[in-house]
Amino acid sequence: MSGQASAEAILNQHSQTLHKHFEKLFERYHEAPPRLMEAIAYSIYAGGKRLRPALILESCRACGGSEEAQQHALTASAAMELIHTFSLVHDDLPAMDNDDLRRGRPTNHKVFGDAMAILAGDAMTTMAFEVLAQDVASPLNAALIRELASGSGPAGMIGGQVLDMEGEGRSLTLSELQRLHRLKTGALLTCSCRMGARCAGASEPILQALTEFGAQIGLAFQIIDDVLDETSTPETMGKATQKDAAKGKNTYPVLLGLEGSRAAAARALDTAMAALAPLGVPADALRSIARFVVERSH
Amino acid sequence: MSGQASAEAILNQHSQTLHKHFEKLFERYHEAPPRLMEAIAYSIYAGGKRLRPALILESCRACGGSEEAQQHALTASAAMELIHTFSLVHDDLPAMDNDDLRRGRPTNHKVFGDAMAILAGDAMTTMAFEVLAQDVASPLNAALIRELASGSGPAGMIGGQVLDMEGEGRSLTLSELQRLHRLKTGALLTCSCRMGARCAGASEPILQALTEFGAQIGLAFQIIDDVLDETSTPETMGKATQKDAAKGKNTYPVLLGLEGSRAAAARALDTAMAALAPLGVPADALRSIARFVVERSH
Repeated sequence: MSGQASAEAILNQHSQTLHKHFEKLFERYHEAPPRLMEAIAYSIYAGGKRLRPALILESCRACGGSEEAQQHALTASAAMELIHTFSLVHDDLPAMDNDDLRRGRPTNHKVFGDAMAILAGDAMTTMAFEVLAQDVASPLNAALIRELASGSGPAGMIGGQVLDMEGEGRSLTLSELQRLHRLKTGALLTCSCRMGARCAGASEPILQALTEFGAQIGLAFQIIDDVLDETSTPETMGKATQKDAAKGKNTYPVLLGLEGSRAAAARALDTAMAALAPLGVPADALRSIARFVVERSH
Repeated sequence: MSGQASAEAILNQHSQTLHKHFEKLFERYHEAPPRLMEAIAYSIYAGGKRLRPALILESCRACGGSEEAQQHALTASAAMELIHTFSLVHDDLPAMDNDDLRRGRPTNHKVFGDAMAILAGDAMTTMAFEVLAQDVASPLNAALIRELASGSGPAGMIGGQVLDMEGEGRSLTLSELQRLHRLKTGALLTCSCRMGARCAGASEPILQALTEFGAQIGLAFQIIDDVLDETSTPETMGKATQKDAAKGKNTYPVLLGLEGSRAAAARALDTAMAALAPLGVPADALRSIARFVVERSH
């Protein structure tokens, strides 16, 4: 896709490709209980922006990935979206954030019950690693599994959710808040860029450049998420808003104010763009996505 | 270990080796939130018989696995026990079986809270795949990951938990009950034998022999589990008993009676033993373990 394309167009195209990929993938599980697969499909097809898959696919392309590399990146995208979606399903549970609405629809456990939502999330995790081990050749598959496991595990996304939970009801410093989000949101966004680069067989300096890019847009993404929670309505967001303030959550607007938060996001975007310099024109789609992350309204 | 050793001695020795292996493994996660690692360690070190690790290690040995193969089998054992333990932690949650007691101690969520128990289970899953991708060389690591993901996923253990849930409150036929347990308990026991064989680089006929062995002791294990639930006290079992009848669960004693169930377990044991014939004397430890599964009193 041309670097001049709008971020929306890039995200939409990848989203459609991924949708078709999931249809084929789910056919493999015809021996699984149908209701379980229904619960999994319900949340997978609920959509969302598919930001992480787009980062994987465009990072691979920006590194000059071959057609075969792009196929691996598509597999990696499916694995990543399975992990991201499992985390949302578990996060919405009554025992966790207790959310009724996600992407404009009832959350998984509201439709399928708490027990099925727990099991659907669990199953998505095993499927993510299975698809990588199955559809990508060795030794790249093991490298991608290491990236995904480390990005999502105790020192990654899941660790961030624990920090988030532990931070409720007490005030975090800016550096504690940054660590929380570096794990909770940043780890998988960074991981997406790294997985794309690995699919393309990128050199170590390019891998590092994309790691920095991913970390900075992860930061920008979370700041804007906090800003939008405070300034948007449930109608535009497709989920409950103003929840952070109500729950006494630690957010960037609380620590930096709305204007200060927007300025911090803009600085993170600048740093992300600078990191991409060595990649030149092939990284234009990543630049579009990065701007979209900061300028989005939902 | 000699084939003449008692099953208890075999299980104990492997259990100690595994314990030390986990201590080193957990050190890698020093950047994770300490409370999360505490919750994970609480359930991992709670013990249990470590039947699956013993099956992996002894299957590898029965196939003539080298020293290096046994090391891979130890890594596979840690991964398997992480998956098995995650399933117990999630299974005990109030939204699932709502159990307060496991292995004689309060269940994970009773000590750490429901949210942390969910996240600890999630983290154990990612750790299981990470340790395989990290510590076993390609392409064996991908083969082990495929085995573990398929044994634990939607058409394996997790699928079995869904069937179990869906079967509550209605009567299952014997063949429905067998399918339920083939997935819920049998899949990981079969998977353990297969992973051990794969570590040793076993031939296809030997892999098939161990698959049949695993399936049959999986069946025997579940029948005896149902029998023990009906005939034991919480004191000997370390968990609540007579729960199945109280919840109207489908069990072998309900369908076959106590004596019929014991006879079915004995038949499964015979079939398991027959499957091991091609392996000869090196499989004696597996034979001890199989007898233990049927003769155990807790």
